Amino acid sequence: MHTQNPNFRRKVQEIFERAAFIEDLGIKLGEVGIGWCETTLDITPRHLQQDSFIHAGVQATVADHTAGGAGGTVIREDEIVLSVEFKINFLRPAVGQSLRCKANILKAGKTLIVVESEVFTRDGAQEKLTAKATVTLAVKGKDEG
Amino acid sequence: MHTQNPNFRRKVQEIFERAAFIEDLGIKLGEVGIGWCETTLDITPRHLQQDSFIHAGVQATVADHTAGGAGGTVIREDEIVLSVEFKINFLRPAVGQSLRCKANILKAGKTLIVVESEVFTRDGAQEKLTAKATVTLAVKGKDEG
Amino acid sequence: MHTQNPNFRRKVQEIFERAAFIEDLGIKLGEVGIGWCETTLDITPRHLQQDSFIHAGVQATVADHTAGGAGGTVIREDEIVLSVEFKINFLRPAVGQSLRCKANILKAGKTLIVVESEVFTRDGAQEKLTAKATVTLAVKGKDEG
Amino acid sequence: MHTQNPNFRRKVQEIFERAAFIEDLGIKLGEVGIGWCETTLDITPRHLQQDSFIHAGVQATVADHTAGGAGGTVIREDEIVLSVEFKINFLRPAVGQSLRCKANILKAGKTLIVVESEVFTRDGAQEKLTAKATVTLAVKGKDEG
Repeated sequence: MHTQNPNFRRKVQEIFERAAFIEDLGIKLGEVGIGWCETTLDITPRHLQQDSFIHAGVQATVADHTAGGAGGTVIREDEIVLSVEFKINFLRPAVGQSLRCKANILKAGKTLIVVESEVFTRDGAQEKLTAKATVTLAVKGKDEG
Repeated sequence: MHTQNPNFRRKVQEIFERAAFIEDLGIKLGEVGIGWCETTLDITPRHLQQDSFIHAGVQATVADHTAGGAGGTVIREDEIVLSVEFKINFLRPAVGQSLRCKANILKAGKTLIVVESEVFTRDGAQEKLTAKATVTLAVKGKDEG
Repeated sequence: MHTQNPNFRRKVQEIFERAAFIEDLGIKLGEVGIGWCETTLDITPRHLQQDSFIHAGVQATVADHTAGGAGGTVIREDEIVLSVEFKINFLRPAVGQSLRCKANILKAGKTLIVVESEVFTRDGAQEKLTAKATVTLAVKGKDEG
Repeated sequence: MHTQNPNFRRKVQEIFERAAFIEDLGIKLGEVGIGWCETTLDITPRHLQQDSFIHAGVQATVADHTAGGAGGTVIREDEIVLSVEFKINFLRPAVGQSLRCKANILKAGKTLIVVESEVFTRDGAQEKLTAKATVTLAVKGKDEG
C-alpha cells in the first residue's frame, strides 16, 4: 500500500476533527498508518440500547468512520471519501467500558476503496471482537460532493 | 403478517424509550403497525460528518433501530430482538432538515427476522431516498441476552 | 428512470447470450424494461446442494446476473457493468421446480448503479420469495475492464 | 475453536460430495481443519461472464460453499448448516486459470456461525485476492430443514 499524500496524517485528523457527529459521540483518533487507522471510544450510558448493550448504531458509526480514516490515508489532498455502502456483523452482545476499532484497507482502487473494520469491546481486562464490517468508500474530488 | 402480542405498540415504545442512544440522538417513534415501524429525526449540526452531509452512522443507526421496532411488533412479550448483521447502501450524499425511516419486515421467522429499512431525507419540500438497509434480527428470550 | 441507449434490449440480450456461465446454468432472459429485468431458471438436480435445496450459489448467480441485466438497460452502448459487491438474504430453504428473478434499479448513478433482485421459487402452483439481494454495479468503459 | 464431532472431516466431505451443484461446477475440497476449509476450482470457459471475467456467481458459490465447509467442522453429527445471508466484495476483475478459496470461522455460536471466505485467482504464477465474503450460517437439526 502506498499513499499519494505525504501529509496523510493531517488529512485523517481533519476527517475526525471536522466530523461533528464523531466528536459528539466521543470517538477519538488513535494510531494511523498508510492503509490503516485506529480509534477508541469510552462507553457512557448514552451509548447503550434498550437492553443495556452498546447500540449497534454506535458500533456501526465507529466502524464506518474509522474505515473513512483508513481511506483518508491513501487519497490525494484534493479528494474526499464518501461511504457507498457497508455491511456489519454483530458477533456477540457488546458489553464493556470502551471500544477500540482497527480499520485496514483491503483494496485501494482509483474510485473505490474497500476497508475492513474490526470493533473490539473491552470489559475489565478482557477485549473481545464484537463486530466486523466491510465498508466500500467512493473517492471524490472535493467539489464533486 | 401477524403478531403474538396484542400489546405490540407498547413493546415498540419500550424499545425506543429505554434506548438511551436513540433518545440522545433525537430519533422519534412515529406510526407502528404489525410488521412495520416509522421514525423521524430532526437534523442538527451534531448529526453531520466532515463535509456537512448527514453522517452515515446516523443513517445506519436510524435504519437499524427502526428495523428493531418493526421486529418488536411480531415477537412475544417475553422476547427481545438483537441485531445480528445489517447492510446499508448510501444512494446519494444526505443533505436536509430531517430524516424519515420506514422499516418493513421481509420475513418473520421464529429465530430470525429480516427487515428492510428505507431512509428518506427531507430538504425543503423535497423528500429523497438516501439510504436503504437490510437488517437481520435474532429473536431471543429476555434472559438469554 | 431513463436510458441513454435506444437499443437497450439488445444490450441486455448480449449480457445474457455472451455469458457462458449463465447459458451453462440454463438461466433465461425474460421481460426487460428501462431500469428492470426478469429471468427464469428451470431447476434440475444439478442445481441442488447437499440437503436437496436449491444451492445458495444458484440463487446468488441469478440475483447477480439479473441485476446486471437491469443495469444494462441504462448504460451507454460503449459501457459495461461489473459487480462491485452484493449482499443476499436467503429467507427460507429454496425448494421448487423453477426460479424467477425480478431486478429493479434503486439508484442509477454515473459510475455506480444499485439494484435490488428478488428471487422467487415456484413449487407446484405456489410461488414464494426465497431470496433478496442488493447489488452494486460499476459502470465502466468497454476498454477499462 | 473446538469441534463437537471427531469425524468432522467426513462431515465436510459429505457437504461437498452430496452437493450436486458443487460437483457440477468442478469445485474440489482441499485441506480442512477445525474452523476452516479450503477449496480449489479449475477455470474453464463455462465459468466466464460476458466480458471473459470469471463470473461473480462462480466466485460467490465458491465463497458460500467453502464457508459451509468451515461451518461443517464445528457442528454436531446430527446438525446441518444453511446459508442465512452473505455479502461479497469483488475487489478486481477476476482473470485466471484457477480459483482457491480459504474460509475461516469468525464466530461459532450455537445457532449462528459467521465465516469469512477469501477467493484468490491464479493467473500464471501470480495469485491475487479477487473477492472476499462474509457468510452467516444457521445451524439446524437434520430434520428441521
